[in-house]
Amino acid sequence: MGQEGKTPPARDLPSSARSRLTRRRQIRKTFNNLKITVLCGVVTILVLRGTVGIGSLVGAGGGTDASEASQQKVVEDIDRILREIRSDSDPDDDDQIPFGFNSTAAVLNYTSAEELAAYANYTLGPKISDWDEQRRRWLEENPGFPSRVDNGKPRILLVTGSPPNPCDNAIGDHYLLKGAKNKIDYCRIHGIEIVYNMAHLDRELAGYWAKLPLIRRLMLSHPELEWLWWMDSDALFTDMAFEIPLDRYAAHNLVIHGYPDLLFEKHSWIALNTGSFLLRNCQWSLDLLDAWAPMGPKGPIRDEAGKILTANLQGRPAFEADDQSALIYLLLSQQKRWGDKVYIENSYYLHGFWTGLVDKYEEMMEKYHPGLGDERWPFVTHFVGCKPCGSYGDYPVERCLKSLERAFNFADNQVLRMYGFSHGNLTTPKIKRTMKQTEKPLEVLDQLNPEARIETKG
Amino acid sequence: MGQEGKTPPARDLPSSARSRLTRRRQIRKTFNNLKITVLCGVVTILVLRGTVGIGSLVGAGGGTDASEASQQKVVEDIDRILREIRSDSDPDDDDQIPFGFNSTAAVLNYTSAEELAAYANYTLGPKISDWDEQRRRWLEENPGFPSRVDNGKPRILLVTGSPPNPCDNAIGDHYLLKGAKNKIDYCRIHGIEIVYNMAHLDRELAGYWAKLPLIRRLMLSHPELEWLWWMDSDALFTDMAFEIPLDRYAAHNLVIHGYPDLLFEKHSWIALNTGSFLLRNCQWSLDLLDAWAPMGPKGPIRDEAGKILTANLQGRPAFEADDQSALIYLLLSQQKRWGDKVYIENSYYLHGFWTGLVDKYEEMMEKYHPGLGDERWPFVTHFVGCKPCGSYGDYPVERCLKSLERAFNFADNQVLRMYGFSHGNLTTPKIKRTMKQTEKPLEVLDQLNPEARIETKG
Repeated sequence: MGQEGKTPPARDLPSSARSRLTRRRQIRKTFNNLKITVLCGVVTILVLRGTVGIGSLVGAGGGTDASEASQQKVVEDIDRILREIRSDSDPDDDDQIPFGFNSTAAVLNYTSAEELAAYANYTLGPKISDWDEQRRRWLEENPGFPSRVDNGKPRILLVTGSPPNPCDNAIGDHYLLKGAKNKIDYCRIHGIEIVYNMAHLDRELAGYWAKLPLIRRLMLSHPELEWLWWMDSDALFTDMAFEIPLDRYAAHNLVIHGYPDLLFEKHSWIALNTGSFLLRNCQWSLDLLDAWAPMGPKGPIRDEAGKILTANLQGRPAFEADDQSALIYLLLSQQKRWGDKVYIENSYYLHGFWTGLVDKYEEMMEKYHPGLGDERWPFVTHFVGCKPCGSYGDYPVERCLKSLERAFNFADNQVLRMYGFSHGNLTTPKIKRTMKQTEKPLEVLDQLNPEARIETKG
Repeated sequence: MGQEGKTPPARDLPSSARSRLTRRRQIRKTFNNLKITVLCGVVTILVLRGTVGIGSLVGAGGGTDASEASQQKVVEDIDRILREIRSDSDPDDDDQIPFGFNSTAAVLNYTSAEELAAYANYTLGPKISDWDEQRRRWLEENPGFPSRVDNGKPRILLVTGSPPNPCDNAIGDHYLLKGAKNKIDYCRIHGIEIVYNMAHLDRELAGYWAKLPLIRRLMLSHPELEWLWWMDSDALFTDMAFEIPLDRYAAHNLVIHGYPDLLFEKHSWIALNTGSFLLRNCQWSLDLLDAWAPMGPKGPIRDEAGKILTANLQGRPAFEADDQSALIYLLLSQQKRWGDKVYIENSYYLHGFWTGLVDKYEEMMEKYHPGLGDERWPFVTHFVGCKPCGSYGDYPVERCLKSLERAFNFADNQVLRMYGFSHGNLTTPKIKRTMKQTEKPLEVLDQLNPEARIETKG
């Protein structure tokens, strides 16, 4: 996504301004060179004094079903990330510097993330250290904005978004629209508010890192929120009846889908998925974002951080730092600091990898019903690696689009059912009546609860 | 929009099924021919006994500013509607019958709408006559679904939607997405629920008529709703602070933007705009929909009704019946029956015609502030005639898209401002900070109310 923040792209400017811009870029290049030199120094020192690093732990621990299942996913995911980079790379950005540092030797000990942060010299904003107190006081003074809504549910905001410009791939915008409609439906049914972001809040954190400044900004602007729920634009709700069991997370601040053994034993780079996660509005979360962000700044920092992540996370291909790997690395390298407040959820599909799910929808409709949220009726189907809005997916476009359409219609059937309609089958946008119209419509209303089974006959 | 309802399109079928389908179509053609013959009969009789018709009233009454202003709009709108027909026409539909009847002679008296309805032999569903009582009882039995939400506001549902298939025009889906984001923003800020429909509930009422069966279905499925608010996909909220003054409409059931003199004196076909209107969930509204719908069924009925409308509404070009003209005709021909419950609103832009507004946004930002809703800061900017999702608009595509982008960013600035950001200018998706970050974010929160003036410096 092209995003120069406060600086307009050169092509929009008169030559005088363009030359000013070129000077600015040269200054930035020089500054970046400086940062890299310092960074090299640190890394070298760390390599020299490198003792027991993550490296030596890689591969430890016995494999479980979950981890075995994941091995094949690793392969599936490698291309994806590489492709994501390309489509996340900034066309306006002409100041990335080729970097000769060989990362394979980079074995850092568990304090390196903080050292990198120190040298990255990047922050999401002014350090806030008393947020819980600030927020508590504000909630007291503003009883009109309670952090718990009707029937005492904690107030949640679903946060999602897509690039400000049209998709590279024309059909992409159509599926972004269907993704938005799908989220509108789930959130209406469950009384959840939505922010759909189409702006780049921080030019340094473009691409998959953009969610960090956005989530932080929304936390600070909406003290009335108890939870912020990030969801990727390519993730669809496929269980319209399932509700997140928030009570289960009363003692936790981050809820994310993943597998503890993959994380702590295998150090797998896909042990967690950041396509759909919940973050509590509190000081702990602000601190996590501060510790998470420093690997994100575009250019040398992100590239160098990528080498550290690849060297330390199992199965990770060589590419710039991504938010998911960075979070996994952070939780591994500072487990004591963060671990006890992180809930790794896999009892339902807070994130569900699409390839294993989309072909089973008819079977699910035969055997089960909405409200289960797990492999029997997945809560979320996430189209990892399809990038319908990008130029490069690592699955055939036809397969991705057909599957997206199936997932959308599978979910839409659960909504249409409440109105007495259903898609003829999961591949068609056309709908048919599933219930005779009556002059006493309210008498049948109770039978139309979202948990009910879905009409399968096409 | 192709939509065969319960019948799959021929191209999806084996030849055996296709021949069955052809037979069905022939039967339908014969039936349609029959309907037309009967209809011609009626019309002829009415023409013979035609006494004081609308025709003789057309042009009566003195013009006012509003009506003068509208004359030029009439011209602007003529192509639009003609183009809309083309892009609303059903590609699957091969059974429209060429029709030789000359409508120019069709001058009907004020009962013709009902006579047409009788002969159209079409209903939105089983007649419901005790809805107010059914609904009252349901609300008593379901205190968990009150028709008034927090601080006693009547519960509103915003209803919008777009075709189930991708737009003819690739960029169209991007602006449908921006339109959806714009509605998500307004509705979040004002606690209004949204239904975004992407299905054809009734194959007979495709195109601009689709809103009728949809609104009726939602009324009957959501007795907890007090108001349903229809808004076209090409209408954007451009005043994020303005709230509809619902108290003003306590005694009314339909709230629609328009000009009484244009309606009752000029019988102008653009006296009202159905791109954004409120309908109360009550028996009266169900009756209105029943009386409104019969001119809608695709094919001969809609074509013939169009001739009646063109013959009787000032400035209307010759084309099939559209929902807006049909409502105007209904209110004129049955003023006694409906008039006292219809509130014709023009004190703010419940619908605002884009051409007169989009070029004044900078001026508005200089002089005024959100929350006014009228020509100083229009509540809604409606891109009548642009059809970003269709093939044919009657304005240059570039002008439409540039203006859509400006309207979106003008509105988005009012949202971004709450987070300390703003678009560099109304033509760019890129944003800049308008407020320094602070470690005490809650201290500035009050200054960021949506009514505040918008940063204009680019």
